Amino acid sequence: MDYFERTRIKNILEKNIDNYKDVIVLGWVRTKRVSKNIAFLEINDGSTLKNLQIVILQPDKFPLDSINTGASVKIKGYLEEVKGREQSIEMKAEEITLIGEAPVDYPMQKKRHTFEFLREIAHLRPRTNTFGVVNRFRSKMAYAIHKFFQDRGFHYIHSPIITTGDAEGAGEVFTVTTFDLQNPPLSEGGEIDFSQDFFGEEAGLTVSGQLEAELMATALGDVYTFGPTFRAENSNTSRHASEFWMIEPEMAFCDLEEMMDIIEEFIKFLFKYALDECPEEMEFFNKWIDKGRIDILKKIIDAEFAHITYTEAIDILEKSGEDFEFPVKWGMDLQSEHERYLTEKHFKKPVMVTDYPKDIKAFYMRVNDDDKTVRAVDCLVPQVGEIIGGSQREERYDVLLKRMKELDMNIEKYQWFLDIRKYGTVPHSGFGLGFERLLMYISGMKNIRDVIPFPRTPGNAKF
Amino acid sequence: MDYFERTRIKNILEKNIDNYKDVIVLGWVRTKRVSKNIAFLEINDGSTLKNLQIVILQPDKFPLDSINTGASVKIKGYLEEVKGREQSIEMKAEEITLIGEAPVDYPMQKKRHTFEFLREIAHLRPRTNTFGVVNRFRSKMAYAIHKFFQDRGFHYIHSPIITTGDAEGAGEVFTVTTFDLQNPPLSEGGEIDFSQDFFGEEAGLTVSGQLEAELMATALGDVYTFGPTFRAENSNTSRHASEFWMIEPEMAFCDLEEMMDIIEEFIKFLFKYALDECPEEMEFFNKWIDKGRIDILKKIIDAEFAHITYTEAIDILEKSGEDFEFPVKWGMDLQSEHERYLTEKHFKKPVMVTDYPKDIKAFYMRVNDDDKTVRAVDCLVPQVGEIIGGSQREERYDVLLKRMKELDMNIEKYQWFLDIRKYGTVPHSGFGLGFERLLMYISGMKNIRDVIPFPRTPGNAKF
Repeated sequence: MDYFERTRIKNILEKNIDNYKDVIVLGWVRTKRVSKNIAFLEINDGSTLKNLQIVILQPDKFPLDSINTGASVKIKGYLEEVKGREQSIEMKAEEITLIGEAPVDYPMQKKRHTFEFLREIAHLRPRTNTFGVVNRFRSKMAYAIHKFFQDRGFHYIHSPIITTGDAEGAGEVFTVTTFDLQNPPLSEGGEIDFSQDFFGEEAGLTVSGQLEAELMATALGDVYTFGPTFRAENSNTSRHASEFWMIEPEMAFCDLEEMMDIIEEFIKFLFKYALDECPEEMEFFNKWIDKGRIDILKKIIDAEFAHITYTEAIDILEKSGEDFEFPVKWGMDLQSEHERYLTEKHFKKPVMVTDYPKDIKAFYMRVNDDDKTVRAVDCLVPQVGEIIGGSQREERYDVLLKRMKELDMNIEKYQWFLDIRKYGTVPHSGFGLGFERLLMYISGMKNIRDVIPFPRTPGNAKF
Repeated sequence: MDYFERTRIKNILEKNIDNYKDVIVLGWVRTKRVSKNIAFLEINDGSTLKNLQIVILQPDKFPLDSINTGASVKIKGYLEEVKGREQSIEMKAEEITLIGEAPVDYPMQKKRHTFEFLREIAHLRPRTNTFGVVNRFRSKMAYAIHKFFQDRGFHYIHSPIITTGDAEGAGEVFTVTTFDLQNPPLSEGGEIDFSQDFFGEEAGLTVSGQLEAELMATALGDVYTFGPTFRAENSNTSRHASEFWMIEPEMAFCDLEEMMDIIEEFIKFLFKYALDECPEEMEFFNKWIDKGRIDILKKIIDAEFAHITYTEAIDILEKSGEDFEFPVKWGMDLQSEHERYLTEKHFKKPVMVTDYPKDIKAFYMRVNDDDKTVRAVDCLVPQVGEIIGGSQREERYDVLLKRMKELDMNIEKYQWFLDIRKYGTVPHSGFGLGFERLLMYISGMKNIRDVIPFPRTPGNAKF
């Protein structure tokens, strides 16, 4: 092949090239137009959204009959600058070689397909404009996340996928086993004997890497996870997937106030990165997916996030005069309608809501002196509500132990989690961001199934 | 707290500081030495291997009794440069605050522990010098991998963790289910009725993201995965884990010869990155883990990798006069002893061995014209043998279909994999590198359990 000899279309269109002659491109045909004296091919090679236009001056000299939409080709020719068109450079073909043809049953003939249809052929949808853009964008934003943390001295942690604990209570857990389900070994009492399973106890897929991240933070200082997490919930919504990627930073010697500064900096960094480093993708989203998306991001970048307590939020909501579906009452969890009222109507910018009632939050959050609220924070943004949730962690051994006992947790199993409070405990804080939720927010894509290459949802783990 | 006010010890020791007065450090006590008129604390905050020495001139004025090894502290003071010592800067303490004490049963009192012992307390081992270094190194090398590919225009792909196919045959698969194992639903024939399971069919944990990466490469051009993969094998060796991270690049329009250039560039880039960007870690490994490690890496960076076919390799081995445990015969898989002979004794540098017998390699590898061998490559390095394996993929629809039928594979289930050969097929190639194997090779660490924060092995999924 000509892997190293060819020129990527991205480089050609950006005129990041040494040579205009004897240029080789390798790619797939997106469209073909043939007339008697001239033909045009639009070629895409995956390096960028845009196609390279190939101009063929003597069409009958080339094997164009066998070259249809979807076919892979090698084209050698020379580049020419053209004026007054969107693409300011095109190629005059000298040699055209068919590599792999695309029969007429190629499902990508038509220019437009519904996202629903494309989910059925998820193996071919990356070849469309939208899913090419989404996948390249996903890659760049994943790198942005690493860059943010690495530049700030955070250490990347691979938290385990298979775990034997689910105490976080964040959601339903998938079982991981090597048992023959037809004949699992039973104990004398007739129960499943997990001591004979692969890991010697009941195991499942992680719902969060947070507890392990806490542990690492109390040794390495600042850490972050970025890995897959799982929920075995039968939620068929546009915002839920059974497998998704989470980012969970954890900072030692850091209280809630300080962490909120990091959250604000992080969100603004990511939005700015998208605008600055992914202009092609953002223009596409802004034009085809959600008009006005760029303005929404810019407003958030320029905003100073509001800060209120949960109790203040309840007060605002009670006085709002709004007719909420879920009546407002101290002690309730905020629903999306409440969150959106706060960020969209009341503050008109992102809001950090802190100090939620203890009873609606997780066991590891630091209990306030009032013994009723905990040092939790949800960061709310217009249109969706909560995008990031976090907390200062309970670092006091006795307080945490008491709380775990209240909740009837298996203390022995979590002794390691208690141990990091026993030996040189430190105030520490962390938060979680769902990577797909971030991508949906920046891009305006409406369904989580369309920002993951191979989504896993109830009833679907294809490809 | 003082998250933003304090100075990281890494910055102090590198003299990357604005101010020598009123400096705050937050960290954990590694050692304490007290005499009548002077005391010393060594403080570590996770930002770097090295400790900051705190000099306390009037020890009786500070609460040193309660500050033991493992305690967390806040220290305010001024920095002073000192001559003739390894650490050329130290802090004179003005204020010392105990944050969290460490009782005398803190298991990290002693300076040296065996790795075996530390695996039992994997929640505390990141606080040791070795595991601090290993974890920071892991983070940096993960970033290096992204950097290599992103700088070359590759797109990062999150291949799915939960899959319904295991055709690769790469290894035993963990079952993922939400069934109550005590009472799984049965079909009329008495078989487990997986149509009632969460995903509507039998699901497991991925053994490789390659097939999905191939699919993405035929749309996006150059892609790579970097994610967790799983093997449900009962292998209790120092090189096998049940959960590990794999890097699997896949390049469209790329044949085996071209891919071998990328592999060589990739390995050299990573080794050079470790030497250039992780000097602290590499010095530590070279001194404490494996003397001479740096020289081994440097030799590989400077070497031009040898290239031979499997058939040539067999010839060399047969003529070697060596007394191998496994007799050499064309058609056999190369064992570690054979690989090591080739790279260590015969070539004395890394070797790419290509064109293995079809019968010992995977179904998706491109069949050569001899119909006996396939376009596979193993990259062998001294001391371990194979470190990277890859192949040019079978891009011919008919040939692949025939091969899958020969192997009695479920064609319907893999129609999507065939489809990418049907529509605009292209020559493409890819390889796989186990991230932990890479870390072990560069660092000289001998057990895979010691380069993963929370290793999963038969009988163990703790923390």
